[in-house]
Amino acid sequence: MFKKTVVAFQKSAILKEGVVTAYKNLLKDPSLKYKAAPKINLSNRQWPSKTIERAPRWLSTDLRDGNQSLPDPMSVEQKKKYFHKLIELGFKEIEVSFPSASQTDFDFTRYAVENAPEDVSIQVLTQSREHLIRRTVESVKGAKRATIHTYLATSDLFRDVVFNMSQEDAIKKAIETTKLIRSLTKDHPDMQETRWSYEFSPECFSDTPVKFAVEICEAVKQVWEPTVDNPIIFNLPATVEVASPNIYADQIEYFSTHISEREKVCISLHPHNDRGCAVAAAELGLLAGGDRIEGCLFGNGERTGNIDLVTAALNMYTHGISPNLDFSDMDSVVAIVEECNKIPVHPRAPYGGSLVVCAFSGSHQDAIKKGFTKQQERWSKNDDKYWAIPYLPIDPKDIGRNYEAIIRVNSQSGKGGAAWIILKSLGLDLPRKLQISFSTVVQHTAESMGRELKSEEICSLFKKKYNLENVSNNTLELIDFDIVRTADKNVRNLTAEVSINGKIEKLTGSGNGPISTFVNAISKRLNTYLNVVNYHEHSLGQGSDTKAVTYIELSNNDNDVLWGIGIDEDVSTAAMNSILAAVNVLIKEGKINLEKAEKVATA
Amino acid sequence: MFKKTVVAFQKSAILKEGVVTAYKNLLKDPSLKYKAAPKINLSNRQWPSKTIERAPRWLSTDLRDGNQSLPDPMSVEQKKKYFHKLIELGFKEIEVSFPSASQTDFDFTRYAVENAPEDVSIQVLTQSREHLIRRTVESVKGAKRATIHTYLATSDLFRDVVFNMSQEDAIKKAIETTKLIRSLTKDHPDMQETRWSYEFSPECFSDTPVKFAVEICEAVKQVWEPTVDNPIIFNLPATVEVASPNIYADQIEYFSTHISEREKVCISLHPHNDRGCAVAAAELGLLAGGDRIEGCLFGNGERTGNIDLVTAALNMYTHGISPNLDFSDMDSVVAIVEECNKIPVHPRAPYGGSLVVCAFSGSHQDAIKKGFTKQQERWSKNDDKYWAIPYLPIDPKDIGRNYEAIIRVNSQSGKGGAAWIILKSLGLDLPRKLQISFSTVVQHTAESMGRELKSEEICSLFKKKYNLENVSNNTLELIDFDIVRTADKNVRNLTAEVSINGKIEKLTGSGNGPISTFVNAISKRLNTYLNVVNYHEHSLGQGSDTKAVTYIELSNNDNDVLWGIGIDEDVSTAAMNSILAAVNVLIKEGKINLEKAEKVATA
Repeated sequence: MFKKTVVAFQKSAILKEGVVTAYKNLLKDPSLKYKAAPKINLSNRQWPSKTIERAPRWLSTDLRDGNQSLPDPMSVEQKKKYFHKLIELGFKEIEVSFPSASQTDFDFTRYAVENAPEDVSIQVLTQSREHLIRRTVESVKGAKRATIHTYLATSDLFRDVVFNMSQEDAIKKAIETTKLIRSLTKDHPDMQETRWSYEFSPECFSDTPVKFAVEICEAVKQVWEPTVDNPIIFNLPATVEVASPNIYADQIEYFSTHISEREKVCISLHPHNDRGCAVAAAELGLLAGGDRIEGCLFGNGERTGNIDLVTAALNMYTHGISPNLDFSDMDSVVAIVEECNKIPVHPRAPYGGSLVVCAFSGSHQDAIKKGFTKQQERWSKNDDKYWAIPYLPIDPKDIGRNYEAIIRVNSQSGKGGAAWIILKSLGLDLPRKLQISFSTVVQHTAESMGRELKSEEICSLFKKKYNLENVSNNTLELIDFDIVRTADKNVRNLTAEVSINGKIEKLTGSGNGPISTFVNAISKRLNTYLNVVNYHEHSLGQGSDTKAVTYIELSNNDNDVLWGIGIDEDVSTAAMNSILAAVNVLIKEGKINLEKAEKVATA
Repeated sequence: MFKKTVVAFQKSAILKEGVVTAYKNLLKDPSLKYKAAPKINLSNRQWPSKTIERAPRWLSTDLRDGNQSLPDPMSVEQKKKYFHKLIELGFKEIEVSFPSASQTDFDFTRYAVENAPEDVSIQVLTQSREHLIRRTVESVKGAKRATIHTYLATSDLFRDVVFNMSQEDAIKKAIETTKLIRSLTKDHPDMQETRWSYEFSPECFSDTPVKFAVEICEAVKQVWEPTVDNPIIFNLPATVEVASPNIYADQIEYFSTHISEREKVCISLHPHNDRGCAVAAAELGLLAGGDRIEGCLFGNGERTGNIDLVTAALNMYTHGISPNLDFSDMDSVVAIVEECNKIPVHPRAPYGGSLVVCAFSGSHQDAIKKGFTKQQERWSKNDDKYWAIPYLPIDPKDIGRNYEAIIRVNSQSGKGGAAWIILKSLGLDLPRKLQISFSTVVQHTAESMGRELKSEEICSLFKKKYNLENVSNNTLELIDFDIVRTADKNVRNLTAEVSINGKIEKLTGSGNGPISTFVNAISKRLNTYLNVVNYHEHSLGQGSDTKAVTYIELSNNDNDVLWGIGIDEDVSTAAMNSILAAVNVLIKEGKINLEKAEKVATA
């Protein structure tokens, strides 16, 4: 009775159900449904032998491509904040909006124009339609520098499906658009206060026959008439990443070597990340002739996002090339991006992620510690000045992060991790055997808690295990001592006052130094045989606050072995305290029976 | 007084302060501190012209490299769950642990050995130390298939800094280790029930002089004596990603073309993601001769993680190559990974992220809609069978996601987005002009709320705007009607009963069909001139439930223009209801004065 409008989506969904039931076949042979994007035959390929030697021009499209793809786009206030951060980071080209799309976008464009420094170019995107172009040009009127960016479907898929346009139609349209923009901007008598640039994007370049991409860009260039000083920008987007990055590089090299007046052309790379290779595509694209990279901080943008500019810039930095972008305060960048985008930066995002300058594995931690020591040696000898620490391709300090966070401790960490924490937090440089002993305690605790241990937890575990707190609750306490020489140069005699359960006693012993005499005195008093298995000392702190710390490993009659730690201004007192620390634990654990020893002592 | 142990970290930190103050210089010229990893001279480079034609062998190291790098490692129960999911996905090689590191790891290895299908090889990692190797071999005793994986420092940095070993020492150590493992496994009379494989990793390969990497691997191969059926695995890790992926590919191609008995060697790629290029490194590495990829789901692993196996596998899938891994139920994969790793999958992670099959931008949404229509045409004509939808490199259904989520609406979306939601939710296929009209309402609402609108919100906005709810509150309601022919074939007469403010009136009008007669009747009754500007109809639902929906754009005397929508089993009733829907809004908004009309009518 009435015409039935085809409900295309419903039908295609129904038709697709059939495909889904055949999914198992498809899984075995997806060539039934998918094929690789065609490659081009590039003769005399040069890019694989080239090296990136300087930074490209950067365009941030965070406020346009990035913003349009957010579930919750930025408020005007957030856009302003983000804009100023981009300027602070050093961006000289910023795509701020699609000004003809809404009054809000138009108004923000005016804000950007009025607040941009003189050397920053405001870029705006427009469709190739006359009334939208007019409105777009109006939005940047009065800017010191402005770039009008238009795009046109050139790939077969986009021309056929979206715009129903032949290649000839597309060229005609591109010429018309460029003529119009030229007449409204650089040729217009009222528009002479602005340095006008023009960017043209054949969409999707990565899916467009590369010969046709060159052909349409030649036509556009002829109309715009760029100069060497102000080249035309041909943006060659991988709007959707459809191939591996070497294929993209081949396309860029073809374009770069076939477009005429190359010196008047700026090749801009705009790779998306559908196949997870956007950074690689940009880097290989630079080798292949790219001059400029368009992307977003931490790779925001439609679907999988655009190339991550933080990674691209710092990849150059760690190869000794200045990116001309300043990420030395990474945490502030992460904070603004997360606040405005309302999408978190992933903990494993290169350079910016919270976990990327951390090591949990014992062997990694050990290597990093050794690396710092060796680098210190090299640097102090002026052997070389280069950063070379295992597992850390960038010095965390260069991006505003500290060394404390490098080593973190979970149940998979070895002895090195906990030892690093103790060193950084308490200043105690534990001997290797003590590290091993303590790491067992840490591993068990982390396993039973099923999570990472915080620094404070590790320190408190350490203090508890080695009896470093509540000294006044100890059974034995050193009050004072005196060591005198004897006729035999190798023998000294000790007299020590020790409080035992609150009662002060005088103990005597002999040996060749404070440790042996004290061990002898205590052994006699406790009616046991104590043996020093291992002994280490180092200074703690600096200047007048310097203390001594002693680590002692004691064994008793029954071969119970344990560590004691003593700290004091006086090195001998520190040593004796370390012995008492171990002895007090042996008593507490019942491995030395004080009562029995009392009886013997008083007998 | 006592030996001062050098607290290397504290010192290096102090020394570093000087470097930090010189940071601004460094920012301008980071070559003061960093240099690029050296390239190799690869003659007759072949990989850039090659194509990936089949899936590699895959090794999941989620339970080893992945797990050790988690702030909160997996519990035993989580490891088991993850292990079974890996098997379900189709992994045939799984590195499960570092069994000599802890009893928990050892015990889990036993679980894996006892629960692995016959065709799955359990891989375990060990340091090159005798007691650890013995413990490691013990952990996989009785397995159907097992791989012992050892590693040794071969890069200058690692040899010098971490192990203090010359190249000769390293080769000697590698030979010893391999001999020991051989004697404990494939040569051991009690170990014959297992198919033993052996993996050797020169660490970090990407930083090792490639000639030396070949040399040490030759020595290892000679001791192990691999076969074509059971090749030795040489893992060539980018333990830290230090160069762009083309450099890694050059290194792989060098190794692949210089190692002897190539047919008895499996080259395994283990790229980390420090420069964000791990997927690219693996793909170019495959072109260069790689046979196997080691990584984790969604790129878990130390620091920036390992290569993301989900992306690598589905990149092949979307090029028509079966990866032999099944990600058709992506949501269940994401759920297990997030539960066990306690690290979220990023919304923009290729294939798996929640935003990657979404479009917010109006032009993208429009292109996707057109793409579905065209594909439907091609598929129904059997023109071709390939998936080709703008902005969607994979059919969301192939990874278990539905079409409803493709198009989402924020303040940046155009007319297409809201129209898609209305189509999918209410079945209403809005005419283009109505789409534009409604999109303005949606854009304003999204802007003022500062966030994405949910489907239900868009539907409720639509129903409110077009008066589709609370029909009983309407001023004018159609009760019944009758249309009769006249002598003139082109003229019909209508008699309609309409309730006006609850009072039933008989109205009459004439025209050539139900719409024109009804408009005529209503115009007379309301003493106004109503004009039909636009009119569309389609069916809604299927079978006996089929209804008709009519969209009508009406203008009045004052050129107020608005849309009305009517739905009914009967097509004429639907049309009349659409007119009344618009008229009721005009009355409500005071654009038709019913009282004044009453007076005229009763005058």
